[in-house]
Amino acid sequence: MKIAIYGYGNLGKGVECAVKYHTDCELVCVFTRRPPETVKAVSGVPVYHTDKIDEFIGKIDVLILCGGSATDLPEMTPALAEKFNVIDSFDTHARIPEHFASVDAAARKNGHAALISAGWDPGLFSISRVYSSAVLPNGADYTFWGRGVSQGHSDAIRRIDGVLDARQYTVPVPEAIEAVRAGECPILTTREKHKRECYVVAEDGADKERIEREIKTMPNYFADYDTTVTFINAEELKQNHKGLPHGGSVIRSGITGFNGENKHTIEYKLTLDSNPEFTASVLVAYARAVCRMAARGQYGCKTVLDVAPSDLSMMSADELRAKML
Amino acid sequence: MKIAIYGYGNLGKGVECAVKYHTDCELVCVFTRRPPETVKAVSGVPVYHTDKIDEFIGKIDVLILCGGSATDLPEMTPALAEKFNVIDSFDTHARIPEHFASVDAAARKNGHAALISAGWDPGLFSISRVYSSAVLPNGADYTFWGRGVSQGHSDAIRRIDGVLDARQYTVPVPEAIEAVRAGECPILTTREKHKRECYVVAEDGADKERIEREIKTMPNYFADYDTTVTFINAEELKQNHKGLPHGGSVIRSGITGFNGENKHTIEYKLTLDSNPEFTASVLVAYARAVCRMAARGQYGCKTVLDVAPSDLSMMSADELRAKML
Repeated sequence: MKIAIYGYGNLGKGVECAVKYHTDCELVCVFTRRPPETVKAVSGVPVYHTDKIDEFIGKIDVLILCGGSATDLPEMTPALAEKFNVIDSFDTHARIPEHFASVDAAARKNGHAALISAGWDPGLFSISRVYSSAVLPNGADYTFWGRGVSQGHSDAIRRIDGVLDARQYTVPVPEAIEAVRAGECPILTTREKHKRECYVVAEDGADKERIEREIKTMPNYFADYDTTVTFINAEELKQNHKGLPHGGSVIRSGITGFNGENKHTIEYKLTLDSNPEFTASVLVAYARAVCRMAARGQYGCKTVLDVAPSDLSMMSADELRAKML
Repeated sequence: MKIAIYGYGNLGKGVECAVKYHTDCELVCVFTRRPPETVKAVSGVPVYHTDKIDEFIGKIDVLILCGGSATDLPEMTPALAEKFNVIDSFDTHARIPEHFASVDAAARKNGHAALISAGWDPGLFSISRVYSSAVLPNGADYTFWGRGVSQGHSDAIRRIDGVLDARQYTVPVPEAIEAVRAGECPILTTREKHKRECYVVAEDGADKERIEREIKTMPNYFADYDTTVTFINAEELKQNHKGLPHGGSVIRSGITGFNGENKHTIEYKLTLDSNPEFTASVLVAYARAVCRMAARGQYGCKTVLDVAPSDLSMMSADELRAKML
């Protein structure tokens, strides 16, 4: 499977190193919007400017799009789906239906396969929600995120006047998780599910009280949560908060029995040292499925919910039945 | 979706009560090998002898086969797949490839869809193993079962001379689970992964020392495990061990990064009050998929690894993308 990376940030680099483990993949090249002579790919593959992309039509099985969901992917994925089989990790949940529609139309135009919103949420967590609700229709779903770094929330803190750098951790409330695991189906507010820990590097002489207040009262991002703010220096941030760990749990509990007398709990839990590298590895596994769908003539847009598990695996169907079932 | 139950034991009863929650299902009837006048269905649906099955050809969308894996299903599933769309929970892992081949040939003969080995292991656990190994190709898989009642092991104890009744619990060793969760990828012997707890009701005057010795030295079943035997009376067994709880975890940990520097752990965990009722609910969700595959002309045999998550859900594709992705 010949793949190429379109966009070379944390996620693009994650895809580049995932190829080392997904041994059926060959990385052809990396595309960047920056001047390509300023970008060196870690693995040594060629780096081209995105305006050279048309020269690769027919030479790449799947193009893995590593742009951002806010402004890049809504334009990028449909435009490129007209020319290539593509996959992205579009993660603005509320806008998935419109993104799906535009990518589907573009992919069908010239007979390509596309898959959007691969990763872990949306992605593996969505799959868990669908399986669990299908097998336990009478129940309730809970998704907890963390402990992990939220890059969007970290960025929001960095935009505050007087802040040099910041890391925000989303942390599930242990009592809430325990109640859900016990099958109690509690009704939980936003505040009862997660708390937010902020580590902030302030400019010398900055008004820390004001910064803390601005963080804690920021609507949507922090106001609805119990938020703690800890000021640290740049060295401590580098030392103790350089990684991008994340994870979380999808838990469904439901009942069966003629009188609803039996309770069942299904938990799907991820503990990730590197959010971008794990997401990238999910993208490569689904790129394999995109490649197979294209070969079967299944054109248009799909999501992880439309792909059978066997289509992600390097093993044959016979091998899967013999070893994994 | 019109379904019928073929075989009315614990699993068949589980399917009968699952229909209450899977609201797109209509249960037409139950088939039994016993004299039907001696069997009363809890929900009041008609009970017929299995020799009447041919009268229902064309009147049932999916026949849910609730026989045993040892001797029933290897004959039953292919024979009925010639006449109906069928699903079973065949769980003899080593014989899945041959069962698949015979059901596949039978189902194709007259254009039916069949699915074998639905449940949780094989079933949801298999799915978890395939997803996790596809997204973390460089890693190791562990499956732990329990704490839960193993019916096969309980039966093995009951066959010992002087034993009136017994319940055997399979219990994962906590230290082993913790090491795996921590991503340590330990190499574990059978004894290090699970232990076996046996609760035994002996005949009055039976030689308990002999019974205990026969249990602990029984090859395949107990000899390779740390096994405890506790003698209780019939009343205690009824009081404290009447349910059929089960569950377990599939855990994969793997690494990513240019130098393998990042570790990730995926855990899929089930905690079930009733093994047969949960298995039955999985069967009904996959019966929905069988029904859809048949409608699309996808004949032959499939397993849970060949079915996309969306095919299990009562929601439409649009609804799934909007609400679950």
